[in-house]
Amino acid sequence: MSGTFTFTVVATDGQARRGEIETPRGTIRTPAFMPVGTAGTVKAMLPDDVRALGADIVLANTYHLMLRPGAERIARLGGLHRFMNWPLPILTDSGGYQVMSLAKLRRLDEHGVTFQSHIDGAVHVLTPERAMEIQALLGSDIRMQLDECVKLPCSEADTERAMRLSLRWAERCRQAFHDEAGCAVFGIVQGGAVPKLRVAGARALAGMDFHGLAIGGLAVGEPQEVMLEMIETVVPHLPAGKPRYLMGVGTPDDMIEAVRRGLDMFDCVMPTRAGRHGLAYTRFGRINLRNAKHAEDRRPLDAESSCKAARDYSRAYLHHLVKSGEILGMMLLSSVNLAYYQDLMAGLRKAISDKRLADFTAETRALWAQGEVEEENVDTGS
Amino acid sequence: MSGTFTFTVVATDGQARRGEIETPRGTIRTPAFMPVGTAGTVKAMLPDDVRALGADIVLANTYHLMLRPGAERIARLGGLHRFMNWPLPILTDSGGYQVMSLAKLRRLDEHGVTFQSHIDGAVHVLTPERAMEIQALLGSDIRMQLDECVKLPCSEADTERAMRLSLRWAERCRQAFHDEAGCAVFGIVQGGAVPKLRVAGARALAGMDFHGLAIGGLAVGEPQEVMLEMIETVVPHLPAGKPRYLMGVGTPDDMIEAVRRGLDMFDCVMPTRAGRHGLAYTRFGRINLRNAKHAEDRRPLDAESSCKAARDYSRAYLHHLVKSGEILGMMLLSSVNLAYYQDLMAGLRKAISDKRLADFTAETRALWAQGEVEEENVDTGS
Repeated sequence: MSGTFTFTVVATDGQARRGEIETPRGTIRTPAFMPVGTAGTVKAMLPDDVRALGADIVLANTYHLMLRPGAERIARLGGLHRFMNWPLPILTDSGGYQVMSLAKLRRLDEHGVTFQSHIDGAVHVLTPERAMEIQALLGSDIRMQLDECVKLPCSEADTERAMRLSLRWAERCRQAFHDEAGCAVFGIVQGGAVPKLRVAGARALAGMDFHGLAIGGLAVGEPQEVMLEMIETVVPHLPAGKPRYLMGVGTPDDMIEAVRRGLDMFDCVMPTRAGRHGLAYTRFGRINLRNAKHAEDRRPLDAESSCKAARDYSRAYLHHLVKSGEILGMMLLSSVNLAYYQDLMAGLRKAISDKRLADFTAETRALWAQGEVEEENVDTGS
Repeated sequence: MSGTFTFTVVATDGQARRGEIETPRGTIRTPAFMPVGTAGTVKAMLPDDVRALGADIVLANTYHLMLRPGAERIARLGGLHRFMNWPLPILTDSGGYQVMSLAKLRRLDEHGVTFQSHIDGAVHVLTPERAMEIQALLGSDIRMQLDECVKLPCSEADTERAMRLSLRWAERCRQAFHDEAGCAVFGIVQGGAVPKLRVAGARALAGMDFHGLAIGGLAVGEPQEVMLEMIETVVPHLPAGKPRYLMGVGTPDDMIEAVRRGLDMFDCVMPTRAGRHGLAYTRFGRINLRNAKHAEDRRPLDAESSCKAARDYSRAYLHHLVKSGEILGMMLLSSVNLAYYQDLMAGLRKAISDKRLADFTAETRALWAQGEVEEENVDTGS
């Protein structure tokens, strides 16, 4: 794959940026939401439909793919794009986050992390160098450094130890990335909820030759205001000319707030996971299709949606599918939610170009509040 | 819904017929395979895709829908077509078969059958009149009489008792069907594996004013030759001008053999159920994607298939999805299998018009045998 990886800011509104990441596999319009294709599939979605709903890029999880089917196997099969029939850009994480959350019997030291597969108990070692090697075998377009992400709350000493280790691993990852044309590697700012550690981390990473920088270790259970404070702390120290990726975030409201503070890229399992559990994200807020009040509601979720699944099926039918555990319910609601997430990103991009992000934010929230929401709308708060 | 229900035989080859059932909701090309939409959804399939793969009609199960969400509710919501977003014809069964196989604490008498829901234990009564009422509430285009289907093997006395009861219920169902324009009701020939009972049943039903006749109580575990013998026994006694439906059948080979003996319509959960369990039906026979030999096989299931799912994904990827329990694997393989079933029907229809059904059958079997099949091909035998 030849070509280059470039990022251009095409419009701004306050701190918010609208941009374009050019890669040999296609352009990523930012702010961008990346659907999560955990094990090489965005769950319950055909790749053509993920694309049709507006995704320019998907994320895949190194941890899952290294365990099954294995990175070397995917390389022998021609790489991850071909494997999952997704021709556009792919971002892979480093595997570190899931080692911490899913694997058994972890042992972490300077060298890396040793763990047991949650699938078959086999022992694996993930080092910065191996994390980069796996991502190269997968052939992803944007690769992430291996880092250590602490759970919040966390003592300042532990937070600093993990942040310093992540910086040393960042250097090893940058060195192990062999500058394939058109591919990128991003560093990850850690530092928990400690502003001075976040600043130190951001400054150190800004001095390394990464193609983009991510903020990690947020949206791990802390209140939204803590997350936003950390973003505000970090962003001034990130290079203006490189994309900024807020990992694992989040709710529609989280993304709006982060975009307003200068973030460009997001990923989250929420739209697909919620969809598999009967929750729909719409312009009118979050709607729980399990609720009996939908049982005879002929209305679609959103007659004006860009998404057929939101227009062509009644809430009563979706309620029936969800109550019956039917796969079609998971398919339709995953589609509805990804469509809403992508439409929100498109709205944000246009609002930035039109320099009316504040109005767009207010209008979006007014629709949520107008809502047809049967419970406290968790998306408008933390 | 105005209009009429008509059946026209447009070509024959030996006993085999190619025909067209005209209904106000569309034409059903026969021989026809009807995908099964048990609870108002062909599992793991979007209705648009079921249609695009070639289905002119789907089947829905009265038993499942009467329990959840309830026939009266579906009627209030505008009927089953609107509920499941399927504008083409729908055939509903009577519910009787599933009462026998799924419900708890059944009590059957002349009046009907009393049973407990397998979902919540609620007591329900299904009589011939109620079975017709439920199907009218659903608004299906083709409705089936309530019958009693015995398990094989079964004593001749029990088989006869059930067959006679089914005939009396047939009369009650025909009377309870209120000749809505464009809608049809079919009688069902029972009689187990006893030829004289099958003949008596067929003759009695032929004398009632049904729009079509079905053969029930086959493909319930008996050898294929018993099923084919019963078909050969019954068909001469069925009116030539009405569609003939072989209920719950079957494998590709079963359908070919039944078409050669004059049957027109089929339904079976096999393509979708097998698809959810990692089995693919293709021109080359049945392929078990769970088998480790597919783990690095870059080939698609069938590069020349009419179905994207069979062309655009490697066997290695399908193997990975199946092993990982991913919903996308179920979606893709259900699609592959329904496409194969529909393509087989299209091939049969063309072969009948071309008067080369024997050659088509031989060619189809040769491809199965050429196969890339790792196990005894269950489709070519019983």
